[in-house]
Amino acid sequence: MSLGANMTVAEVLARAIQQRVRLLAEDEGKALLAQFGIAAPAGRRVADVAEAKRAAEELGYPLVVKALVPGLAHKTDQGAVKLGIENEAGLLSTVRELDRLFPGMPLLVERMAGPGVEMIVGLTDDAQFGPCLMIGTGGILTEVFEDVEFLLLPATRADLLRSLTRLKGYRLLAGFRGTAAVDVDRLLDALEGVARLGLEAAGYYEAVDINPLRVNDMGATALDVKVMLKSEVTRNPGVASSAGVAHFAGFFAPGSVAIIGASATPGKPGHTVIENILANGYAGKVYLVNPKGGEILGLPVYSATSDLPEGIDLAVIIVAAKDTPKALRQAAARGIRHVVLSAGGFAETDETGAQIQQELIDVIREYGMHVLGPNTSGHVSTPARFTSTFFPLGKIRRGNVAYVAQTGNFATFTMKYILTAECFGVSRVVGLGNKIDIEESQALEYLGNDPETSAIVMYVENIKYPRRFVDVARRVTRKKPVVMLKGGSTEAGKKAAAAHTAAMASEDRLIEGMLRQAGVVRISDYSHLVLAGKALSMCPLPAGNRVAFLAPSGAMLVCLSDLSTRLGLRVPELEEETLRRIQEITPAFIRIRNPVDIWAAALSVGIEAAYGVGVEAVLDDPNVDAAIAVFMLTKEMGIPDSYDFVVDLVRRHPDKPLLVSFTGDKKCMDECRESLEPRGVPTFMQIEEPFQALSILSLCADVARRP
Amino acid sequence: MSLGANMTVAEVLARAIQQRVRLLAEDEGKALLAQFGIAAPAGRRVADVAEAKRAAEELGYPLVVKALVPGLAHKTDQGAVKLGIENEAGLLSTVRELDRLFPGMPLLVERMAGPGVEMIVGLTDDAQFGPCLMIGTGGILTEVFEDVEFLLLPATRADLLRSLTRLKGYRLLAGFRGTAAVDVDRLLDALEGVARLGLEAAGYYEAVDINPLRVNDMGATALDVKVMLKSEVTRNPGVASSAGVAHFAGFFAPGSVAIIGASATPGKPGHTVIENILANGYAGKVYLVNPKGGEILGLPVYSATSDLPEGIDLAVIIVAAKDTPKALRQAAARGIRHVVLSAGGFAETDETGAQIQQELIDVIREYGMHVLGPNTSGHVSTPARFTSTFFPLGKIRRGNVAYVAQTGNFATFTMKYILTAECFGVSRVVGLGNKIDIEESQALEYLGNDPETSAIVMYVENIKYPRRFVDVARRVTRKKPVVMLKGGSTEAGKKAAAAHTAAMASEDRLIEGMLRQAGVVRISDYSHLVLAGKALSMCPLPAGNRVAFLAPSGAMLVCLSDLSTRLGLRVPELEEETLRRIQEITPAFIRIRNPVDIWAAALSVGIEAAYGVGVEAVLDDPNVDAAIAVFMLTKEMGIPDSYDFVVDLVRRHPDKPLLVSFTGDKKCMDECRESLEPRGVPTFMQIEEPFQALSILSLCADVARRP
Repeated sequence: MSLGANMTVAEVLARAIQQRVRLLAEDEGKALLAQFGIAAPAGRRVADVAEAKRAAEELGYPLVVKALVPGLAHKTDQGAVKLGIENEAGLLSTVRELDRLFPGMPLLVERMAGPGVEMIVGLTDDAQFGPCLMIGTGGILTEVFEDVEFLLLPATRADLLRSLTRLKGYRLLAGFRGTAAVDVDRLLDALEGVARLGLEAAGYYEAVDINPLRVNDMGATALDVKVMLKSEVTRNPGVASSAGVAHFAGFFAPGSVAIIGASATPGKPGHTVIENILANGYAGKVYLVNPKGGEILGLPVYSATSDLPEGIDLAVIIVAAKDTPKALRQAAARGIRHVVLSAGGFAETDETGAQIQQELIDVIREYGMHVLGPNTSGHVSTPARFTSTFFPLGKIRRGNVAYVAQTGNFATFTMKYILTAECFGVSRVVGLGNKIDIEESQALEYLGNDPETSAIVMYVENIKYPRRFVDVARRVTRKKPVVMLKGGSTEAGKKAAAAHTAAMASEDRLIEGMLRQAGVVRISDYSHLVLAGKALSMCPLPAGNRVAFLAPSGAMLVCLSDLSTRLGLRVPELEEETLRRIQEITPAFIRIRNPVDIWAAALSVGIEAAYGVGVEAVLDDPNVDAAIAVFMLTKEMGIPDSYDFVVDLVRRHPDKPLLVSFTGDKKCMDECRESLEPRGVPTFMQIEEPFQALSILSLCADVARRP
Repeated sequence: MSLGANMTVAEVLARAIQQRVRLLAEDEGKALLAQFGIAAPAGRRVADVAEAKRAAEELGYPLVVKALVPGLAHKTDQGAVKLGIENEAGLLSTVRELDRLFPGMPLLVERMAGPGVEMIVGLTDDAQFGPCLMIGTGGILTEVFEDVEFLLLPATRADLLRSLTRLKGYRLLAGFRGTAAVDVDRLLDALEGVARLGLEAAGYYEAVDINPLRVNDMGATALDVKVMLKSEVTRNPGVASSAGVAHFAGFFAPGSVAIIGASATPGKPGHTVIENILANGYAGKVYLVNPKGGEILGLPVYSATSDLPEGIDLAVIIVAAKDTPKALRQAAARGIRHVVLSAGGFAETDETGAQIQQELIDVIREYGMHVLGPNTSGHVSTPARFTSTFFPLGKIRRGNVAYVAQTGNFATFTMKYILTAECFGVSRVVGLGNKIDIEESQALEYLGNDPETSAIVMYVENIKYPRRFVDVARRVTRKKPVVMLKGGSTEAGKKAAAAHTAAMASEDRLIEGMLRQAGVVRISDYSHLVLAGKALSMCPLPAGNRVAFLAPSGAMLVCLSDLSTRLGLRVPELEEETLRRIQEITPAFIRIRNPVDIWAAALSVGIEAAYGVGVEAVLDDPNVDAAIAVFMLTKEMGIPDSYDFVVDLVRRHPDKPLLVSFTGDKKCMDECRESLEPRGVPTFMQIEEPFQALSILSLCADVARRP
């Protein structure tokens, strides 16, 4: 391969692929890198001793000589790389040795590079994620400590720097054991170059490993590069980074709805969905369809979809999987363009189901419909007092958090839990189901602009269009928090690849990288779907990660300080004035600091006075972004007459989250919770939970502050 | 320094310290290592070119030459180390260069070692922990990734191997990128040698760094060693590894008790303690002492301790700190030998308090007393129906778990929480307070032999005698589980030391190492003190870490599988027969595997039948050590008529833990909990909690299986 003057990178790589080249020769790879501004040591390809001597004269010692053996992956292990050649005698013996080991192979004579930190930088063109960049610390660190970060391309310089600083090995770049700090700006230049290569050559390469990229105070130099080409060019189809989402109004504010498959039998999904719609006080028109006709829950029943009037906004189709394509087509014929497909039994089940699902896709394309599901437990829009869920939820509490969930469990059991155990409500819920049409990026884009929604919590098992998702989420997270639980960080996809980058590119690492790029805060426990929704519903975003907290036990203070550190929260020093205010109500043998040991004050001036003064003082402190109070509650030691003072504190400090937990008598704890929660103060039964909740808020606030 | 034939290692080091040597010359350090069987490259100390040439003839090339500069810590950085000398010309130029850089200094000429994996092995003689061994992966891995493990000495070969295999860098030892696997047995021999050195030379060295220890298939070779001596010999006083603990009976089964500082005023500690004793139904004699005399709660009050009869087993002294020494002395004068000192205001408060505390220690020594506290919220012994706590707890539930806690919060608010929110009980509770006499090792030793106690949960902020603790805990953990929350993993103690080993020896790393050695399972959340107690009370130890679980949602199954992996639990494949039994009640579109997706079966055959069959099938499976069931509970979708079937399943599978959680309607969840918990089935409000609980059980079972 040689880079013709008039050929683009893509043309050159395409020709190589045509010629069945799978691994570019090292000097060809370096020439490719040079096109993108990535330096390599000065070098010459030579064929014999005479050429080697001439190259040495031009380059100067010390030198490195490598045999250019086509397709040889582990050059060093195979003895094809000779370092530290100091003079002509050494050069001649090296050339002879390589010629004996690899007869007839051309050699690469290179100037030996100066010392520096070794990194690995790579590219992989993932079938699902498209071109991705990997940055890692080099050498055995990559393989043993897996100290690597991934980014989807394109990536901003800020993305690159964020990934770089997240590496444990970043410490090495700042100067270590007598070595000078590396030039991070020039390293970023090189990374940007690799990223450009990754985009321009997408579809042509399987993987690129620059390993090592040696970095020092002079810049970054690619000492070796492997460019592995695909066996045929496969450009991943582009996906629009934005989908028109105006049609969501048809789901979230339908003027009329048809229930196709309405049932007269209580307990059947086609019955429960009507009960839910009525229980929520939906003001639009509800049309029921069932071949039997008659009346259900006081509403007349049409015996066929074809009998329905024109112009219905939304249909909820609850019929057996095999009957769904026909029902969908009939709805389309009546001009219905928004449909919820509730039944399961499609691609998630078996081959027959997958075929039916394909039929559905054909109908959608034919009529230009917008479809949620199939295999979805439905959706909720509290501002429209509407839901399509067939699970007996009854009246759904209105709130300002939206949920997008690729699990039937959410709009059913988890929603029931939120309604019965928590006090916060939702704006919208979208059950994605099998996502044959509407997927998470579209839902996110709509909710990003939805004035009813101030925060979005998502559960997804896969991301259908990762590149679109990053683009959409980047925009949305500038405006409102987005939290995601990604189910199934399976390692099954781990490949035993020749390239480090491909071997390291597990789905979980790519997801991790893309969510960070996109500003989406990742959580890992299912129950934190509720925790996050609650925190985002009930609290403002804090201005920073500095928390003050009060507890009635040194042991709790110590353990919760450790927990704060693990969760990325800081426990700052308090102002003199703050300390004075709390010390005033505290016996002298307790020296007040943050966190605040409040038990002695509580015993001395009473729970209400102690916590009232203590919480107010820390909320007033300019060093504090949020406060957590752990109340000590037992009848015998006294409980507050009322918790009004806490509600009042929250009202008077609207910009700082105040979260509450407790210890002591379970009954008193329940009473406190029942008093505070309905009035908007979040309480948590386990003392660690408010810290986990605040950590999520703090990470969301970090994203909101990104330039 | 030279090792005289008739001198012990200690004598040689003592002489060096006397001569104000702080850092042994490298060849002296290697000679010291040789005494303990740790190899170094063959080498000679030489003074000039002629000697160097002679050494080279004896040793053979390639060689390494180092300048032996007294006190030079960073030899390589200073240019005092020259590697890879291939011939006499190289040797001569090297000797001349070193002589120019370090005029007059002797040189060490050594045979250059073969390639291998670089480790770091070190010793530090910690003021609190005594001699400790560090094992780590070498090079920058040590400093950037902090891949090190610590052990208290002495350590068994099993301890050494366990630490070695915990290193991330252990992968390097198994053969990596074409290198041969190292000889782990010979590495362990070398580590045992270092451990012996660490013990024999304890008191003399500040730290020892063998860095690198090069390890390959031929064994382990110390390429460099720094032996840093103390400025004066400070042998840490030996502490008996076992304290006589027969006297604990005086606390846990007292025949009679005196309350010194009894109060007639309800709400005062001196009153509440009497209420607690009466509420628990203590059968022994209770004597009250208060200068005012009279009667309290129907019991006569003595006006002075001197009026008490002889032979009282235990005194609880609840008087102001300043009056405590006098009260203690008076109790001693009446022959009382067991005392609980409840008041605070001692060393934890201020200098005056510390002085009073010292007075107490003097009295204890003088009379040979056994004292709990001061600054303790007391102790509990349910078999004796006795407690000395002054917090209004009332009747304390009897159980088989003992708590040892260095926090006043435990025997007060946390105990109140356990009594009101949980169903399990305790055998003993020991509030350690300021530990002027009884400390955690003694308590642990007693409880280890206590037939009333089957598991021990501890919270400590510091370990008074680490070496004793390891010895005791090693014995106890062979018999019953011990779980510990260590408060305050402060990094304040981090030293900026010249030696790597000393720099890495944070208190938290030493604690981590010693707890693992001792077989104590470490937890990190305060609320897990309750979680662990509950699990150990209500469940058998599982035979292994293999869990099967059932939940009504694919999303939960996915997230909980991830959680299991993070917690060290395995989710094994199930037997064909197990799958068949569950598939039989499950619609065909769900393919049963572990974890079990149970919702479709529950909708099809009902909750009770589905969970009954499912749980029984997995508990019967020989691949399963424990099961977790997440029930789906809403009135509308149906709940079991009774939970008897769960109680029955537990009874019929006594060797396998079954833990329960739920999702759905909070009220149904509460009802399920209220039905199951009193009958010995542990339930958890958050679905992650049973996994955390099982993880603790599984780690305890691991320890129990240690050979």
